[in-house]
Parts: sequence; structure tokens; C-alpha cells
Amino acid sequence: MSKLFMFEKPVGMRDTLPHIYETKRQLKDSIEQQMKSWGYQFIETPALEYYDTVGEASAILDQQLFKLLDQQGNTLVLRPDMTTPIARTAASKLLKEQVPLRLAYSANVYRAQQREGGRAAEFAQIGVENIGDETISADAEVIALMVSAMKEMGLTQFQVSIGHIRFVEQLFQQILGTEERASTLRRYLYEKNYVGYREHVRALSLSSIDKQRLLKFLHLHGNEDCLQMADELIEDGAGKEAIQELRQLIDLLKDYGIDPYVKFDLSLVSHMSYYTGILFETYADGVGYPVGNGGRYNNLLEKFGQPASATGFGLRLDFLLEAVGELIEAEGIHCLIFSKERRKEAIEAAAKLRAQGEKVVLQDLAGVKDVDRFTSACGNVSYYVGQVKNGGES
Amino acid sequence: MSKLFMFEKPVGMRDTLPHIYETKRQLKDSIEQQMKSWGYQFIETPALEYYDTVGEASAILDQQLFKLLDQQGNTLVLRPDMTTPIARTAASKLLKEQVPLRLAYSANVYRAQQREGGRAAEFAQIGVENIGDETISADAEVIALMVSAMKEMGLTQFQVSIGHIRFVEQLFQQILGTEERASTLRRYLYEKNYVGYREHVRALSLSSIDKQRLLKFLHLHGNEDCLQMADELIEDGAGKEAIQELRQLIDLLKDYGIDPYVKFDLSLVSHMSYYTGILFETYADGVGYPVGNGGRYNNLLEKFGQPASATGFGLRLDFLLEAVGELIEAEGIHCLIFSKERRKEAIEAAAKLRAQGEKVVLQDLAGVKDVDRFTSACGNVSYYVGQVKNGGES
Repeated sequence: MSKLFMFEKPVGMRDTLPHIYETKRQLKDSIEQQMKSWGYQFIETPALEYYDTVGEASAILDQQLFKLLDQQGNTLVLRPDMTTPIARTAASKLLKEQVPLRLAYSANVYRAQQREGGRAAEFAQIGVENIGDETISADAEVIALMVSAMKEMGLTQFQVSIGHIRFVEQLFQQILGTEERASTLRRYLYEKNYVGYREHVRALSLSSIDKQRLLKFLHLHGNEDCLQMADELIEDGAGKEAIQELRQLIDLLKDYGIDPYVKFDLSLVSHMSYYTGILFETYADGVGYPVGNGGRYNNLLEKFGQPASATGFGLRLDFLLEAVGELIEAEGIHCLIFSKERRKEAIEAAAKLRAQGEKVVLQDLAGVKDVDRFTSACGNVSYYVGQVKNGGES
Repeated sequence: MSKLFMFEKPVGMRDTLPHIYETKRQLKDSIEQQMKSWGYQFIETPALEYYDTVGEASAILDQQLFKLLDQQGNTLVLRPDMTTPIARTAASKLLKEQVPLRLAYSANVYRAQQREGGRAAEFAQIGVENIGDETISADAEVIALMVSAMKEMGLTQFQVSIGHIRFVEQLFQQILGTEERASTLRRYLYEKNYVGYREHVRALSLSSIDKQRLLKFLHLHGNEDCLQMADELIEDGAGKEAIQELRQLIDLLKDYGIDPYVKFDLSLVSHMSYYTGILFETYADGVGYPVGNGGRYNNLLEKFGQPASATGFGLRLDFLLEAVGELIEAEGIHCLIFSKERRKEAIEAAAKLRAQGEKVVLQDLAGVKDVDRFTSACGNVSYYVGQVKNGGES
């Protein structure tokens, strides 16, 4: 291979070196522990799935899928999310065992990037899916679990923004009539391009009252008070029911004592097209992207032949690492350097220290070309070199 | 999607359901813990690599690679092993920090299967690479660490078969002369087709003395005594040096006290073409495939521009799970079922139990269609249903 090319990795692909690996691992363990203590059970699904099953049911854009052909000529995809494979697994097997079903995952997902711009094409996602429970209690539970996991990892400066996709849909339908016009506005919202949204609204052929409603809609964020405003903005029907669900939700979140971490944002929409109800994004101080997101998706399971309501969330480990900010202290490794004469003594000393919980490198002096450079990476060095003494270190 | 197809997974791809997941996780944690306590540092590399770098340097057959094109038209591969990506990472960065370098990984690797025959196309591998130490002490260390990890997970009935690829190469070169003839015999060895090997040897146009040497070679397995026999079979040169290395190795393994787990098998060869010295396979009772394998590969790093000796091993988590045989006891989950009136009380009770280390499912009664079926999967059930009482469970 050419010298310039040999260290290259594909666009958006990264190595995780030891120090960051350990910090990520610690965060991961902490989140997984929380999920388990809330009774969620972990499962694993394959990295490759058929395009015709999971690829098609996934909400990720086709151009972001890594696709390949298997030896039988079928198109495969690298899983772009975990919610869809878990829906497949739940529908094919686990829903026969218990409903509601509480599942969790901790896995890498894959989304192709057009160019190297800092966006990861492979990233670790940790999340839960609560399947078969249509009550708002299930929505509240997954939000409360997410907040609990964030707090457990030492984060205090974060906020969950909560919206309701049916409110947005109903409002747009009542005012705009066509799905085409609604989808243009939804894209502005998804891109959080509020200037573009406003300009677009002003240019629409609508009554000034309706334009005002669409503009007021952008102000529906903050505490509970905005639910009252939202209620006044929407006509009877599914939109008002959505507001009613959000009222139930905040009552539940108060019972969990996590309302201080929550605010409403009724203009919240998602690129995940499968959401059908309450949805949310979690922001941590100092991180430009949501560290987590989730919501209710009551129509996905039926694509796998088992209609069931569901809600869940996923956290992004890379963004959480940014939020936590500092790396854990690298643990000092104790290096025992031996020469042949005292080899056995060194092996026994290493075994003893390891049994006491120490991390111990056992190194033959003959295998080290530059001792100073080698030991500079050790926390602590002991030499077992030269003639055997009375058991002590030289 | 069609109903017949919707639960299908690609050939060799599997789901791991909760009970097996937890058992695998426990094995994995135990192995990782051992590796860390021996001073090995974990790193992670991407699932996708360029074919021209890692794909080409890998020892896995081309037809077993999952290949795809990225949006720039480059061919990518799903990593078929971890040794090659780690060599890339070490060469590009980590060897500047410490030599010898001790790295570890715990990751899934991917090998395409022609048909569904029980062989996994994705499996978890946990291993270490010891880079930059050319002494036999490094070979002994990785074998001792592997044995230690096996014992730590409760296995006692296992054996490490050790050979030396340079002995095989030299013997074949001395007798057969051409690489072509040697490679035919090596394939019989790799397939462990000793009948085919013998027939092939008998049909070769060689002196009867040389045929006898090739047939005797198959008997070079067992304890140390076979090293003496091997020494008598081979002429001076690299082959005798190989035997000398194996003598040094067994002395070291005795110092580690793990010689009872070791036997020699001088006819051991590998499908991994990068081995250059001592190599080994680990067999556990009751499992048809090696649960682990490894060896010395002194030429791989130079493909990434940084010549360095190296040795390591990889364990297969799926085969180890078979070896361990039994699954861990599923932990009973405590289910708290509440109705709205006593919701807050149930939330607080759940938080308390979780803080005490219990796994607690908190379930709104309104979200359960079939209470008997739901609770049958619970280890323990408490009801917080109906009018508020004086704090107790109903």
C-alpha cells in the first residue's frame, strides 16, 4: 500500500485510544447499570440486516445507509439505528414472553457521511425501548430513566425538551390543509431554521389570523404555561388531546421529581419519521447536538406483523463524553522489569500484586530497547534484575 | 415487506437475547478484567476500514470479506479481524508512546459465510497484542495471560496446543524444495486431514527416508519429549532454532506454573498467514473449534511502515460460552404495579429499592392487558393499587 494512504480510515471512522476508551467505558457502564436497575433487559442484534426488512423500516435516510450485497445477491445494510432491529426481535419472539416489554441496547450504529466534516459515521448508542404500554406512564418512565442516567454520570447542566408530534401535525393540517405544505414547514423546524420558517409563513397565501397562529406556534416553548397557550392555538381534536397528554406527562414527571430538568418545546419535530406522539431531545451544556432523543412510535411494530405501542430513547456516548468534559485519571500501571535470573520471582510478585487488584506489566529487560522511554509510561517501576537476592526487589 | 421474510436475518447473523446476553457479558467482563490487570490497554477501531489498507494486510481470505463501496467510490471492508486494525493504530500512533506496547480489544469481527450452516458471520473476539518485544518472554506472557483468563472464568478442562511455523516451513523446505509442494501439505495440516496428508506424502517422488521424516512429523505432539524428536528430524538452521525457542518457552511456562495446560503439536499451522514463529490454539472440552488462537507475527507491522515484532491471541466469546456450558441464573426482577392513586408512593418505593441494588420494574396497571402473563415473568410482585393506605403495600 502507498505510504500516504496506509494510516487512512474511511470518512467518519475513528479510533478510540486507551485513555478515551476507559472514560467512555465508565460512562457506558454507569448508564447500563441504571437501565438494568430499572428492569430493562439488554439484547444484541446483528450489525448487518436485510435492506428489505430493517433497512426499509428504519427512519434513516436512504443515502445515509451503508449498503452491500451478500453472496446470495441480497442487499444488506449496516444497522443505522437500534430501534428497528429491536422492533424486529420483539415482534418475532420476545413479545410472546412479556407485555409490556422492557429492552435495552448498547451498540454501534452506522450512518454514511458525504465528507469528512467531524460527523461520525459510526457511533455508540445506548438506549431503551418500552414496548406494549400505551399509557403516558411509559413515556414518563423512559424520560425519568434518561434523566436518572444523566445525573448518575455526574451531569447536572442538561435539559430535556419535550414536544408532541401530533400537535404539530394537527396544527399544520388545520391551517395548511395539504401534507406538502406541512412537510415544507416541518423541514424548517427540523433544521431549526426559524428565520426561514417565518419568511416561508409570511409568503403563504393564508389569512393573517392563520399566519399569526403559525408564527405564535414558534413561541410555544418553556414551562407548563405554554401548554395553555398551545391549547388556545389549536381547534378541537387530536391536537388538543396531544396537549392533554403533555399535561399528564408533566404531572408524572413531577412525581418523579425531575420536572426541573424538563421544558416544553411544541415546535419539536424529528428526522425520525416513525414518532407518533410525545417526543423529546436532551441537551447538555456545552454540546452543540442533542446527547439523547426519543419518543413514542406506535406504528413501527406493526411493520413486523405485531402491532404494539412503544416508546424509548437513545443516548449518544460520544456527545455525552463531550458533556462530561474531562477524562478519568489514567490509572498508574506498575511495571516489573526482570532479567532471566530473577524471572520466576518477578512472575510471582506480579501475580501477587494482580491478585490485590493492581495493574501490573511484567517486562523482560531483554525485550526493551529504550528503558527510559519504556518506564516513562509506567506509574511505578520495580526491578528484578541481576543475581537473586534474598527475595527483595533490587 | 412480505410476512415470510420480515423476521429473517442475513446468513450467519444472530440475535442475542437477554439471558445469553448477560452470561456473555459476564464472561467478557471477566476476561477484560484479567487483561487489564496484566497491564494491557483497550482500544477500539472502526468496523469499516479501507480494503487497500486493512483489507489487504489482513490474513483472512478475500471471499470471506464483506466489501462495500463508500460514496467516494473506495472499497471498504467490515473488519475481518482485530490484529490488522490494531497494527495500523499502533504503527500510526501508539508505538511512539511506549515500546513494548500492550494493547487489548473486545470487538465483533465479520466473515462472510456462503450458506447457513451454523457458522457465525459476526462474532465477538477478545484479545491482546504485545507489540515490539521479540523475546520469548512476550510469547510466554500472552499464553500465560490466556490461560489465566480461561481459569478465571471457571474453566479447568482446556489445553493449549503449541507449535512453531518456522519449524514446519524449514522441514518442508528441506524435504520438498518448492513452496508449491509445501503449500499443498500445509493445507492438509490446516484442515487437520491427516489421512489425506499421509496419502499425499506416499504419492510424492521422494526417498523413503524423506517420506518417513514427513510421516514421523505427524507424531510430533505431546509433552516436551517431542521437542527432542523434532530436533532429530530437522537439519541445522532456522528449524533447530525454532525448537530451541520452544524449549525456552516451556521453561517460561513452568515458571508461570501453567505447563499442565500446555502440549506441543509441531504440525500446527494456521489459516492466518501472518504468523512467523510460535503459534498456538486453545481447545476446551466439549467444543469442536478452538476457543482461542494466537502466535507471533513479526512482519505485519512493517506493512504499516513501522517494522516491529509482535505476538498476541484472540478468544472467541461464542465458543467460550459453549465451553462454560451453563447460563448464569437470571436475576429475579421485582415488579411494582401501581394505579394512579398510589403512583407517587410506588415511584418512591422503586427508587429506594433500586438504590439498594435491586432491579425494579415500575409498571402502571393501566398499561398491562394481561396481568397474569405480565407478572409470570417477574421474580417478585408488589401492588400499589387502589386508595392510598398508610404507606404500606396493598
